[in-house]
Amino acid sequence: MGAPSVEFWFEFASTYSYVAAMRIEEQARGRTVVWRPFLLGPIFAAQGWRDSPFNLFPAKGAYMWRDLERLCEREELEWRRPSVFPRSGLLPARVAVAAANEAWLPRFVRAVYRANFAEDRDISSADVIGSVLESLDLRAADWLARAQSADVKERLRAETETARTRGIFGAPSFVVSGELFWGGDRLADALEWPASSDGRRA
Amino acid sequence: MGAPSVEFWFEFASTYSYVAAMRIEEQARGRTVVWRPFLLGPIFAAQGWRDSPFNLFPAKGAYMWRDLERLCEREELEWRRPSVFPRSGLLPARVAVAAANEAWLPRFVRAVYRANFAEDRDISSADVIGSVLESLDLRAADWLARAQSADVKERLRAETETARTRGIFGAPSFVVSGELFWGGDRLADALEWPASSDGRRA
Repeated sequence: MGAPSVEFWFEFASTYSYVAAMRIEEQARGRTVVWRPFLLGPIFAAQGWRDSPFNLFPAKGAYMWRDLERLCEREELEWRRPSVFPRSGLLPARVAVAAANEAWLPRFVRAVYRANFAEDRDISSADVIGSVLESLDLRAADWLARAQSADVKERLRAETETARTRGIFGAPSFVVSGELFWGGDRLADALEWPASSDGRRA
Repeated sequence: MGAPSVEFWFEFASTYSYVAAMRIEEQARGRTVVWRPFLLGPIFAAQGWRDSPFNLFPAKGAYMWRDLERLCEREELEWRRPSVFPRSGLLPARVAVAAANEAWLPRFVRAVYRANFAEDRDISSADVIGSVLESLDLRAADWLARAQSADVKERLRAETETARTRGIFGAPSFVVSGELFWGGDRLADALEWPASSDGRRA
């Protein structure tokens, strides 16, 4: 049996998902990465949070901003603390769901993360997402229209519900052979998880 | 300048602190580890939590229990999910504060963690902490009395306040040259942090 695929569950508002999105393909070294956008908002709301925990809990937030600065320095990733946080990732998540079978999906995801966390651009805006699509030589108007179709909206809701039922409570999360790993730090562990279905290490 | 010391901030109720406590000295490879017990309860209470976030947020809790099982398997540490969680770490934290200058402090800390997370014993009980002290050939009655002195109680309160003012919001946390790292996963990063005071990598 070959190495199992890695499900990458991400939210465009999530700072730690930015780092994971930029690095997962090189870390996965040829393993299949399944890009699974979802929304954290409904999952947070279900536990009574109406804002990011990094805003609700200031010490946790202060730590996260410093940690991201260190992480991006180590990973040699551009980083600019966004002037608005969190920014809604709803529109780009819908585009990503619409583009689930497109080869350019990972490039789109990375470009949106760069817009939010390296360029401080408003990823909730159709103008910004349109310009990201155009930068990839895609027809922005077509994809923005598809993103707003009832079918895509419903698929994103279903993905978020799937995340919740799998026990996902934060982003980035990784699922390998049914095992859940939370946080960018755990990607290496996720990649080592065996394909066998009994959930034990080989 | 030699390698800077590593402050290890831990809470006896904390599952991830257990793994860190068992492994920090071998990972630190001769670096000075400063063992700094504190209480998370007052820090959590200040942000409105009256219980462990792992109890307040069930998905996070379910993940943590599975994650600990995996981590302990990987680290070859004994693990038994405690029948009560969280157990108050107040009494052993006071003993640890009283024993701040004793060579046996790390052994005591590890023995208390084993009692809680490998043996499912009630570490809030003077009988249990007494038997842990005796297992280290210490005079249990003496140390339990010292632990309950006004001076030690005040020192533990001050340590917890120091933790809070340094931005600590969870355990384990590590501080190297003034830089804060949260979570057992970040110990390796903490150990790589340079001694220089400007907070930049060499």
